[in-house]
Amino acid sequence: MIRTIIYNHINMKQFSLTIQSQGRGYYLITNQIEQALGNSLNNVEAGLLHIFLKHTSASLTINENADPTVREDFKNFEEKLVPRNYPFTHDYEGEDDCPAHIKSSLFGCDLNIPITNGSLGLGTWQGIYLCEHRDRPHRRELTITLLY
Amino acid sequence: MIRTIIYNHINMKQFSLTIQSQGRGYYLITNQIEQALGNSLNNVEAGLLHIFLKHTSASLTINENADPTVREDFKNFEEKLVPRNYPFTHDYEGEDDCPAHIKSSLFGCDLNIPITNGSLGLGTWQGIYLCEHRDRPHRRELTITLLY
Amino acid sequence: MIRTIIYNHINMKQFSLTIQSQGRGYYLITNQIEQALGNSLNNVEAGLLHIFLKHTSASLTINENADPTVREDFKNFEEKLVPRNYPFTHDYEGEDDCPAHIKSSLFGCDLNIPITNGSLGLGTWQGIYLCEHRDRPHRRELTITLLY
Repeated sequence: MIRTIIYNHINMKQFSLTIQSQGRGYYLITNQIEQALGNSLNNVEAGLLHIFLKHTSASLTINENADPTVREDFKNFEEKLVPRNYPFTHDYEGEDDCPAHIKSSLFGCDLNIPITNGSLGLGTWQGIYLCEHRDRPHRRELTITLLY
Repeated sequence: MIRTIIYNHINMKQFSLTIQSQGRGYYLITNQIEQALGNSLNNVEAGLLHIFLKHTSASLTINENADPTVREDFKNFEEKLVPRNYPFTHDYEGEDDCPAHIKSSLFGCDLNIPITNGSLGLGTWQGIYLCEHRDRPHRRELTITLLY
Repeated sequence: MIRTIIYNHINMKQFSLTIQSQGRGYYLITNQIEQALGNSLNNVEAGLLHIFLKHTSASLTINENADPTVREDFKNFEEKLVPRNYPFTHDYEGEDDCPAHIKSSLFGCDLNIPITNGSLGLGTWQGIYLCEHRDRPHRRELTITLLY
């Protein structure tokens, strides 16, 4: 244990954000989250940020922020993990429909990130990904809740 | 960013809930969560709801709330993702034992959901699933914590 | 619903913790988390603990705390789930590099656990795992945030 911060009587701030995906793929959205936060993190020595995606065919995850080939590998490998030729029953919207639902639950639709010294408390190599599991571009809505 | 709510000096409420599963499958429990919350969300413009499942062979996830074939597809596909004929060592309780543990960690045992305008801030198609990964029915305990 | 606790004007405490892994495997770290918390949970009837791992090639999950063969089964099965011989592009650091990133996102890098009656509100069989997905030992940093 190398650092302890204590806060009394914490506060909450909640807001909405929309991000447009360009079709199936993994998008680094750390900057967009930080921009949406604006100056809300100023003087916040310790806090907690919750990011929630209001969809069932996309997801949020944290992964490598530097080499874009990692995001390409995710995009390729997800097709092996949840193959679109599996005999799914739910295929109203095409063969990418049910695989997108399952990937969404495997990666999850919400993240909590600590706030430390006025910034997202991510590790050096961590970035926030919006994972679009549908083939076509979609408008994705998020709810962000800050405890501080 | 289309809406910002600020709360000072937030409060916490915590309670327990038990849900009976009917054996391996995916159960939509949004209504049971809302009933357990009772009138706790009244006048809560912004908040955060944490749902925790106290088990290692079941899980919680958020997915499609309308078409029950999605939940059937999850039930079928999880057997492909984590096959029960894999040579697991831990099989005290049968061939569904270790696969249930692994599925529990892949989907996760806790969820955070924003509260917005007095309701769960889910997207239009989002529902809360209790995922029972054991073949036989189980009584599942949850701890619900509301920040408001 | 069998128990309700209400807290007004909750507080926050945040601190850091480092855990050394001994290479690829699943490590039960419940005791290390409890030790790091020290007496912070004393008299905390209800709370929420957030644990965040600042890495993209390891993860945190909750699973069976008693039989070590479960953790061995996880270690073996993850190689089937995300095979290292898949043609990943990102392999700067060896064939265990990209599989580690993908496993990290499948299991996730953060957990929320309720605090109940002065202790972690885990189920009887639940323990906290640090999942090391890289072959070699690594020093892993965590940020712990307590709401109480």
